Amino acid sequence: MLNKTIQLRPDDPEITLTAYVTDEPWKARDAMLVIPGGGYGCICDDREGEPIALAFLARGVNAFVLKYSVGAKAKFPRPLVDASLAMAYIKDHAEEFHIDPDRVFCVGFSAGGHLSASLGTLWHLPEVEAETGLPHGKNKPAGMVLCYAVLSAGKMAHKGSFYNILGTQTPTEEELDRYSIEKHIDENTVPAFLMHTAEDPVVPVENALYTAEALSKQKIPFELHIYPHGPHGVALGDWQTSRGNKAWEDDAVAKWVEDAVYWMKGI
Amino acid sequence: MLNKTIQLRPDDPEITLTAYVTDEPWKARDAMLVIPGGGYGCICDDREGEPIALAFLARGVNAFVLKYSVGAKAKFPRPLVDASLAMAYIKDHAEEFHIDPDRVFCVGFSAGGHLSASLGTLWHLPEVEAETGLPHGKNKPAGMVLCYAVLSAGKMAHKGSFYNILGTQTPTEEELDRYSIEKHIDENTVPAFLMHTAEDPVVPVENALYTAEALSKQKIPFELHIYPHGPHGVALGDWQTSRGNKAWEDDAVAKWVEDAVYWMKGI
Amino acid sequence: MLNKTIQLRPDDPEITLTAYVTDEPWKARDAMLVIPGGGYGCICDDREGEPIALAFLARGVNAFVLKYSVGAKAKFPRPLVDASLAMAYIKDHAEEFHIDPDRVFCVGFSAGGHLSASLGTLWHLPEVEAETGLPHGKNKPAGMVLCYAVLSAGKMAHKGSFYNILGTQTPTEEELDRYSIEKHIDENTVPAFLMHTAEDPVVPVENALYTAEALSKQKIPFELHIYPHGPHGVALGDWQTSRGNKAWEDDAVAKWVEDAVYWMKGI
Amino acid sequence: MLNKTIQLRPDDPEITLTAYVTDEPWKARDAMLVIPGGGYGCICDDREGEPIALAFLARGVNAFVLKYSVGAKAKFPRPLVDASLAMAYIKDHAEEFHIDPDRVFCVGFSAGGHLSASLGTLWHLPEVEAETGLPHGKNKPAGMVLCYAVLSAGKMAHKGSFYNILGTQTPTEEELDRYSIEKHIDENTVPAFLMHTAEDPVVPVENALYTAEALSKQKIPFELHIYPHGPHGVALGDWQTSRGNKAWEDDAVAKWVEDAVYWMKGI
Repeated sequence: MLNKTIQLRPDDPEITLTAYVTDEPWKARDAMLVIPGGGYGCICDDREGEPIALAFLARGVNAFVLKYSVGAKAKFPRPLVDASLAMAYIKDHAEEFHIDPDRVFCVGFSAGGHLSASLGTLWHLPEVEAETGLPHGKNKPAGMVLCYAVLSAGKMAHKGSFYNILGTQTPTEEELDRYSIEKHIDENTVPAFLMHTAEDPVVPVENALYTAEALSKQKIPFELHIYPHGPHGVALGDWQTSRGNKAWEDDAVAKWVEDAVYWMKGI
Repeated sequence: MLNKTIQLRPDDPEITLTAYVTDEPWKARDAMLVIPGGGYGCICDDREGEPIALAFLARGVNAFVLKYSVGAKAKFPRPLVDASLAMAYIKDHAEEFHIDPDRVFCVGFSAGGHLSASLGTLWHLPEVEAETGLPHGKNKPAGMVLCYAVLSAGKMAHKGSFYNILGTQTPTEEELDRYSIEKHIDENTVPAFLMHTAEDPVVPVENALYTAEALSKQKIPFELHIYPHGPHGVALGDWQTSRGNKAWEDDAVAKWVEDAVYWMKGI
Repeated sequence: MLNKTIQLRPDDPEITLTAYVTDEPWKARDAMLVIPGGGYGCICDDREGEPIALAFLARGVNAFVLKYSVGAKAKFPRPLVDASLAMAYIKDHAEEFHIDPDRVFCVGFSAGGHLSASLGTLWHLPEVEAETGLPHGKNKPAGMVLCYAVLSAGKMAHKGSFYNILGTQTPTEEELDRYSIEKHIDENTVPAFLMHTAEDPVVPVENALYTAEALSKQKIPFELHIYPHGPHGVALGDWQTSRGNKAWEDDAVAKWVEDAVYWMKGI
Repeated sequence: MLNKTIQLRPDDPEITLTAYVTDEPWKARDAMLVIPGGGYGCICDDREGEPIALAFLARGVNAFVLKYSVGAKAKFPRPLVDASLAMAYIKDHAEEFHIDPDRVFCVGFSAGGHLSASLGTLWHLPEVEAETGLPHGKNKPAGMVLCYAVLSAGKMAHKGSFYNILGTQTPTEEELDRYSIEKHIDENTVPAFLMHTAEDPVVPVENALYTAEALSKQKIPFELHIYPHGPHGVALGDWQTSRGNKAWEDDAVAKWVEDAVYWMKGI
């Protein structure tokens, strides 16, 4: 297989894309950009990076894990620029990666879900196109998978994530609205697959519900699974990512990758 | 097996409960009251009655299909009284039916989903207790399964259902609110499992989303699955209930019974 | 649904067929004749009758449980005549039972597996045709499902079963051969699905292996699953038929009905 | 992840082990040595190497693909020495590979199935211990998975494989017996999981049946799945390894990896 790490920005060696690509495929595969979470303060790629990539890879989807700008560098649109560069890199190397450039999806977790949703919703922001210099639509995913994602900046917000991407702990309403995903869903938004646990104590399930409502209003196709049990950060929902924490293991949750791959076929 | 039809009301032979109960179980089983849809104008029990009962029965849940008051007799609380009598009958015959009276669930489809949700939410209505003469809580289910259910009487309402249960085509806001499920979810509401298709053109998916939001607000445990494809009335989602209409068959949808049975174990 | 018991022989009220048939199907279904075990000494229909019928029914296969001649009446070909009458009855009532008369399968357990295999292998015995008066092939199933079946009368035989059907505890080699299934597999034999547990202490797994070998030799299509764990009599392999005996529950075993239904589609 | 290729023999750079190991596991994992087929004439690792490794890896099993001696170098025990060195290397690097050295399994396909079965059956051959210099039992797997494996050198043999490992096209009966797996199953043999298709035109299904019989006789635990349809070389049984050949895709077959992983838990 091809398993290598690519530097996405000449100016920042921390922004990387790690490829998980099978050898000798006989046809172009679907691709998945995997965006781990961490509240835009760090990157939880141990649980939400490689294990996710391998789960998709084994189901026929070549995968790529992104390390994006966090902490002091998290101010938007910088992480969205990182993700856009990643999308463009994958598409530009479709032949090397044995993938179909029209079928590059993204999956994100928690804050990574916000970045994934930003890519699927705000891919056309002029400042992103300006900063990346990419042709219009080059960074647009074929669909987005949003796992217990930070989405809404309203009263159900995961505040820390928004403080990080706004670069202030006292944002105005207007600033918050700017990256509150459910407010930007329109005809440009890509199809979505969402999953969340009802009792998530960190990112309230309303983040998924409000976004689903906005998707429905705009008639953007979506699939949504809310599982009754499980804390924040369930990742694969099985022992592989639970580190022995039984609350992170649940047979209902553990079906989501299979379901997401089935959903992708319908896109 | 025991497969018989019971008359629930001495005054109306059309209100019946049909039992699907296995012989010689070695332990008390869970029970499921199955409530078919039909807009409170008729009862679609061919697709949403027996096939559902048999699907649960084969997974270890004894099942009972309800025929309730519809059409000219649909005015509330009459159908809710029917469903309450059914719950009481099942619990009162726990020994004959080999079931645990503390674990009688209900599942409803479309308008039957409204009646199922009414049972899980409005079981304590004084007029219902008065009319049935049942002890407080006797009609309360252990949990409710709501399939592409009519739930909200607001702008996303399936109007026909509400006209039928209100007995008027020009209801007031206050009348509509009375049976708009999401407005009555409180600490008395039972755990819920909801499923819907995103593109349902008859009962908008917002019915499920608004109810999920209300459940979340009240911290009532719930599970929700929204599948991207499928018209109204998918029933089992497989060839058994599709009558050859391929739009009613979908492998994603067809998992819901299995998922609901797993959910029941967690209650 | 239609759930009734039919008497198959005017001369013996104990020989019956119990139908489990859904109402209002929109197309002709497959049918399954269910033959419980009991060493030809009794009929274990509590665990290997109705629960099996309901498992197939819920997956779209109308089912019929047979009570056949056992004990003092077990001498062959009498039980095979019973099973033949059952097949003929089902086919003759295809319209009433909403089934395709060309797609009536049989499934048998332990000694019932022997009877099922006899039907699929020895359906053309002249004495059976003579005694039943049925047209040639009327009793032939479309395929046979053999669960931990008594099949071989050789050194791996479940002796009790053969003593019962031969009516002697000191049969000659020639008598034993007469109903040793693996010796009669030829171009008349129907496709087979076999399952067994490797450690079955009552009916050795060689019964399945020898039969598979004979099927392979004759190029009769077959599917075979041998699960490593489980005592004799696993039935459904889940809690429904385990009566609390955990050894009778196993997730590997519990897939066989689903697998058998998939196999039927390929016939 | 760790994805590197190790040279197993100083004298032959073609004999390699390619590791597929996840980063930062929180507990020691099971390991799987993957042995592709090719009739001991070549190595089909494109379809029976990496795709298999990734399928196990995604289910929590770290995997290692072996390239062993074939063609002019295939004469036994050389390939068995290669496989023994691979087992020893994996166990000796248990810490680096995050695996439990007591739980290293092997899986083989076609001729690779023969090599896998040789490892599980003939691991104690004096000439192998002599040539490798390994401590007794160091090369013994925890269990063996045999996929449409070349096993018997008798009348159902895949002759080409045996000619290659015997180094002659006119072997004596005694020579053939030496590596005919079913003749060497005894108390030293490890638990087995076998799968085959009934209509395999290259390696007859009897190879699996005879071996199962021998395993049963010795009371070695085994699981066996024979699927009715599919040519030789089904690999994963899905589109990933079918190269567009629909005969290599079958939903029944495609369950085997999942089943094998479940089987491993029971060892």
